[in-house]
Amino acid sequence: MDKPFGEFKVQEIPVPEPKRGELLVRQVMCGVCGTDVHIYQGRLPDVKYPLVLGHEIIGTIEKLGEGVNRDHTGREVEEGDLIYVIPALRCRRCYFCLDLRQPNLCMNGTAYGFNPYPDEPPGFYGGYGEFIYMRHPNSEFLKMDAKPEAAVFLEPLTIGIHAVSRVDIHVGDVVVVQGAGAIGLSALIAAKEKGAFKTIVIGAPKSRLELAKEFGADLTIDIEEIEDPKERVEIVKSETRGGYGADVVIECTGFPSAVPEGIDMVRRGGFYAVAGHFTDAGPVMINPYSAFTRKHINLVGVWSSRLEDFIRGRPIIESGRYPIEKIVSHKLPLERCKDAMEAMIEGYRLDGKEVRKIVIQGGL
Amino acid sequence: MDKPFGEFKVQEIPVPEPKRGELLVRQVMCGVCGTDVHIYQGRLPDVKYPLVLGHEIIGTIEKLGEGVNRDHTGREVEEGDLIYVIPALRCRRCYFCLDLRQPNLCMNGTAYGFNPYPDEPPGFYGGYGEFIYMRHPNSEFLKMDAKPEAAVFLEPLTIGIHAVSRVDIHVGDVVVVQGAGAIGLSALIAAKEKGAFKTIVIGAPKSRLELAKEFGADLTIDIEEIEDPKERVEIVKSETRGGYGADVVIECTGFPSAVPEGIDMVRRGGFYAVAGHFTDAGPVMINPYSAFTRKHINLVGVWSSRLEDFIRGRPIIESGRYPIEKIVSHKLPLERCKDAMEAMIEGYRLDGKEVRKIVIQGGL
Amino acid sequence: MDKPFGEFKVQEIPVPEPKRGELLVRQVMCGVCGTDVHIYQGRLPDVKYPLVLGHEIIGTIEKLGEGVNRDHTGREVEEGDLIYVIPALRCRRCYFCLDLRQPNLCMNGTAYGFNPYPDEPPGFYGGYGEFIYMRHPNSEFLKMDAKPEAAVFLEPLTIGIHAVSRVDIHVGDVVVVQGAGAIGLSALIAAKEKGAFKTIVIGAPKSRLELAKEFGADLTIDIEEIEDPKERVEIVKSETRGGYGADVVIECTGFPSAVPEGIDMVRRGGFYAVAGHFTDAGPVMINPYSAFTRKHINLVGVWSSRLEDFIRGRPIIESGRYPIEKIVSHKLPLERCKDAMEAMIEGYRLDGKEVRKIVIQGGL
Amino acid sequence: MDKPFGEFKVQEIPVPEPKRGELLVRQVMCGVCGTDVHIYQGRLPDVKYPLVLGHEIIGTIEKLGEGVNRDHTGREVEEGDLIYVIPALRCRRCYFCLDLRQPNLCMNGTAYGFNPYPDEPPGFYGGYGEFIYMRHPNSEFLKMDAKPEAAVFLEPLTIGIHAVSRVDIHVGDVVVVQGAGAIGLSALIAAKEKGAFKTIVIGAPKSRLELAKEFGADLTIDIEEIEDPKERVEIVKSETRGGYGADVVIECTGFPSAVPEGIDMVRRGGFYAVAGHFTDAGPVMINPYSAFTRKHINLVGVWSSRLEDFIRGRPIIESGRYPIEKIVSHKLPLERCKDAMEAMIEGYRLDGKEVRKIVIQGGL
Repeated sequence: MDKPFGEFKVQEIPVPEPKRGELLVRQVMCGVCGTDVHIYQGRLPDVKYPLVLGHEIIGTIEKLGEGVNRDHTGREVEEGDLIYVIPALRCRRCYFCLDLRQPNLCMNGTAYGFNPYPDEPPGFYGGYGEFIYMRHPNSEFLKMDAKPEAAVFLEPLTIGIHAVSRVDIHVGDVVVVQGAGAIGLSALIAAKEKGAFKTIVIGAPKSRLELAKEFGADLTIDIEEIEDPKERVEIVKSETRGGYGADVVIECTGFPSAVPEGIDMVRRGGFYAVAGHFTDAGPVMINPYSAFTRKHINLVGVWSSRLEDFIRGRPIIESGRYPIEKIVSHKLPLERCKDAMEAMIEGYRLDGKEVRKIVIQGGL
Repeated sequence: MDKPFGEFKVQEIPVPEPKRGELLVRQVMCGVCGTDVHIYQGRLPDVKYPLVLGHEIIGTIEKLGEGVNRDHTGREVEEGDLIYVIPALRCRRCYFCLDLRQPNLCMNGTAYGFNPYPDEPPGFYGGYGEFIYMRHPNSEFLKMDAKPEAAVFLEPLTIGIHAVSRVDIHVGDVVVVQGAGAIGLSALIAAKEKGAFKTIVIGAPKSRLELAKEFGADLTIDIEEIEDPKERVEIVKSETRGGYGADVVIECTGFPSAVPEGIDMVRRGGFYAVAGHFTDAGPVMINPYSAFTRKHINLVGVWSSRLEDFIRGRPIIESGRYPIEKIVSHKLPLERCKDAMEAMIEGYRLDGKEVRKIVIQGGL
Repeated sequence: MDKPFGEFKVQEIPVPEPKRGELLVRQVMCGVCGTDVHIYQGRLPDVKYPLVLGHEIIGTIEKLGEGVNRDHTGREVEEGDLIYVIPALRCRRCYFCLDLRQPNLCMNGTAYGFNPYPDEPPGFYGGYGEFIYMRHPNSEFLKMDAKPEAAVFLEPLTIGIHAVSRVDIHVGDVVVVQGAGAIGLSALIAAKEKGAFKTIVIGAPKSRLELAKEFGADLTIDIEEIEDPKERVEIVKSETRGGYGADVVIECTGFPSAVPEGIDMVRRGGFYAVAGHFTDAGPVMINPYSAFTRKHINLVGVWSSRLEDFIRGRPIIESGRYPIEKIVSHKLPLERCKDAMEAMIEGYRLDGKEVRKIVIQGGL
Repeated sequence: MDKPFGEFKVQEIPVPEPKRGELLVRQVMCGVCGTDVHIYQGRLPDVKYPLVLGHEIIGTIEKLGEGVNRDHTGREVEEGDLIYVIPALRCRRCYFCLDLRQPNLCMNGTAYGFNPYPDEPPGFYGGYGEFIYMRHPNSEFLKMDAKPEAAVFLEPLTIGIHAVSRVDIHVGDVVVVQGAGAIGLSALIAAKEKGAFKTIVIGAPKSRLELAKEFGADLTIDIEEIEDPKERVEIVKSETRGGYGADVVIECTGFPSAVPEGIDMVRRGGFYAVAGHFTDAGPVMINPYSAFTRKHINLVGVWSSRLEDFIRGRPIIESGRYPIEKIVSHKLPLERCKDAMEAMIEGYRLDGKEVRKIVIQGGL
């Protein structure tokens, strides 16, 4: 991609030979993320153009650099194995990485798919391509024993896992997820795995809510049917102990207006996790008296995810507990990256089918 | 007080004889709280008029009911002893009191000074009077070994203690307090007692900030001198490790505009406690991206306080570590309750002196 | 029961009429708990004889006292409804109840089944009888919509729920339960509800371990087959990430020797909950270097349970997610209380069947 | 040092030239730690001989390698500046470093003073020498603005800071420290900085307890005067709210027998941190019923410390709040390393003076 709202060019460049500690990966699939769209739109000021997009990458090992024979957790690997490319490249030296032990807030972090080598011409450093060259010394990967269509969801799943690690979910608790997109489903899975007793998903369209039910949501609320936020709040409350509200609400929409609505759904003393605002969509009016002090709220932001979230997510995908492969709705070749961007921006449908998760397939 | 913005009438009524388990207290002082002013203005819809205001009550035991010979923590008491009347009367039966163990969120709570017996004519159930009749079965009191001018501050101090119990303060951390009023000083004391390494108080006027320094604030920022919130944010940041922002910020102003400013002062991954919004002062614009998700914030509301906060506050006052008695600026007789209200509403001065904490003295 | 190792006498006494706020309950079943056996053996020095044993009580409402028309959580009740008698009677006034908000550590607590009125002749204050007279002002009960054989397990289930509330279980974690008795199964259910990814139960005999598998244990270790503790530790480690040990181990055996073995199973930095030592079974050798400091352990004791644990447990039983009713192995009439005691002391079998949970049926 | 109980040889070897990213430090002082003595005694099986001991190192920058111009927190440095050598060298790649974010449990960690290059002849990789060559890529250092006699205490101080980060200290809490040696004083300082309201130090000899008082201990208990542990427990209890026991006890002795005594001092539901058992001193009898389950204890082990603990400790030393420089009792030249070892093993005195902290001065 050459510039905001620019063109995706498919180029042939020489495939590098991985050196000691490096890895060359043949892409199998790369998920299209809302953040990719934000980069396409030029809304992430720190990302430099041109670049190769894509950070939800599953591939097979094409060539192992010298000394590389195990994945991050010690599983033995050989050429041909399916692996997940952990995109984030933390510095492991800064105040946040080392001292506060919050590597998700790394001061010097970059990632595959975010142009980690901005001073060079674009290379194999993103998932929208045939190969990924894992050249950075802090690169990590995980061998996966799952279908690629399910495995590709690992990175989105880490956001939900990170979110639930920031709230208390006690035995018997009711958890609400605002949003039925990829992050919403990720939060739903994570909430169930963290012990939510009852889960409620709020979103649209109907088909996504049906998918949420397949994933185990106890109740779904269709915002196209129940258009009044107050009514939605009342429905949530009526499903909770004493009608006091949900113990935990996780925001996965990216819409500022979802925030005050979600806070209204939380019981006094409960948790609200704002996990969907990866980019600036503007401010919203919040009343500090009713939303914060009187609510005695615990509101947490959830920025990015951590290596541990990948480790924790892998066995969930490998277990086959959830029909995760159904999230992939479209498989597009490299030539159709721009179609993917526009489908994500404009609406729910592409090629006559509703959009859930589009994946780009780099293979020729 | 008969109605919102009404009159304070001083009436003589028969002094009750305390029955088994009850107590009659001769008022020594009662602090005037911002919440009293909100009741005076009719801004607390649940409070019924007429009533006797006042919930920051220090007094001497006038008459012990049968069976009462120790305070809540087991200190022996006799008539004449100085005690603090714990105002809150929790039900100890509801979901919040018993099941969630959050009695500050009691569904059926009332308090001395908030008209606990709304179906009866006003009696000795508030601090703006000569006596307090502790008749409720859930009444508790604490014997205090301190000057009344210091002891009267126990209830406000509990708000700060409660606030710091809701955040993490690690060794070496920087804590900012927004507000230099009674709650601001309470939060300052509590932050120091909870282990803040460096404390910064932001507020006005200058004389209050000087008092904050006497209480041990390492730095004060005068909002009348530094009028630009952005500049104040920069000053705070420059005082923190790496310039990243404060580890903890505690809001004690009640002004909605203080909230986004305070969030800007918090480092990523830090804590923001909203402790000053006891009444509805309207909404404010907040950006969920920068203030919540990207900030990876921990934002907590702080509603009321708990018995344990009184137990924890008493030894601090008794230790004499802080010149708490200097907070009391005015001692007014019962007849001047309305003057107190108006001074709190209109400004900083009364009787030619700056207002810090006004106390009402019920004695004739 | 008249004294340690004494007789259980079935007596007829007048059935009381419940007064305002009280309740008369017709017993349906009362579980026999190991603690009952300890009382039978005279090992709980605070309990006075004679008394009526039994604190795992499910019954129907025989007579509602005036003003009683809802259960503790607000469900409407009428005569004939099935309810659980919450046995614990906390004072709601002491330092632990009110100030530390740890009512399970109440200084003045008693309970139905533990002789709450020691100065009176035994009355209907325990579960081994035809009626229970809920006379204490702090009595609480819960309406239950479940088979009595499952519902009777609510009190034991609260121990497991309390235990998991004291440890961190993250998404993907491995939890080991030492013990396959009632408390072991309780901890297993609770661990699964709190989000354990993999659960391992260690105990005997084989039939109990088979029941644990029906409850969802991923692996069981039979101590009669694998007799060497070191070997058991190695099996557990081999089932964990990197072979480092379990993230959480919950002790539910009451045997001191289980403690060092269980600590060996915990990974460095993990959690060990000692939930099975309700009575003194003697000391054990522990090495503070390897078990505590070098292990960087988080070891928590779990004493009794809290009202919230009952609230959290009820929907689990009502959901029918687990075949809880299979835990009841024997239903004995009042006349056979002593047989129950001896079967619990001597071994695994009674009336030719293996003992899981014995219940006493008070009905004539 | 050539082998357990062997000789310390002072050798001259060529001083290396620091390469890019490296540092050469001229030793100013190196504290003698109990762990050094354990290595001298051959009690740390992982450490290979021969080696240069010493990991509490303060020195001046002799030569900056290319690209090194700031310390770990960004303070600018130049040759001649006083710095602390952070001894621990974590791998920053393993499951504990990266995934669990517990670098103190690093699987591949080593440290200056523990022979980080065991396959080479001893070099400048420990503090008992004239220079320290910071060659490892994960080396970190901190510029310090304090007297060397105070600054040298930073590493011991991190143990106390780490310990208090593992317990809850609420406003008003009583904290007991078992042990008045270097780690005991470290825990005392940390407890005060974390907000302990009252601190009690238990140990001997009298002169160390007097030093503890200078550091702000509210009470000291001399174990040479009060020889009966039960009596010591009673004294502690009598100093706590309601006589229930200390909220937090921190073990800093290394003696197994201190553990059950310390647990007896904790109130039910309180914290016990085992911070003093860095080496195996054998097991001790503990009763799981009274010490764990019934006590409802929170017992935490404290292994090593983390970079953040150094960051948090530096400003405490720089503030001059505590007379830390008084801890250094002896300054010995390199030739007397063995005297230091034997004084630490045999008793309290060396050169006619009581031993607190011995430092080795490498300068010629």
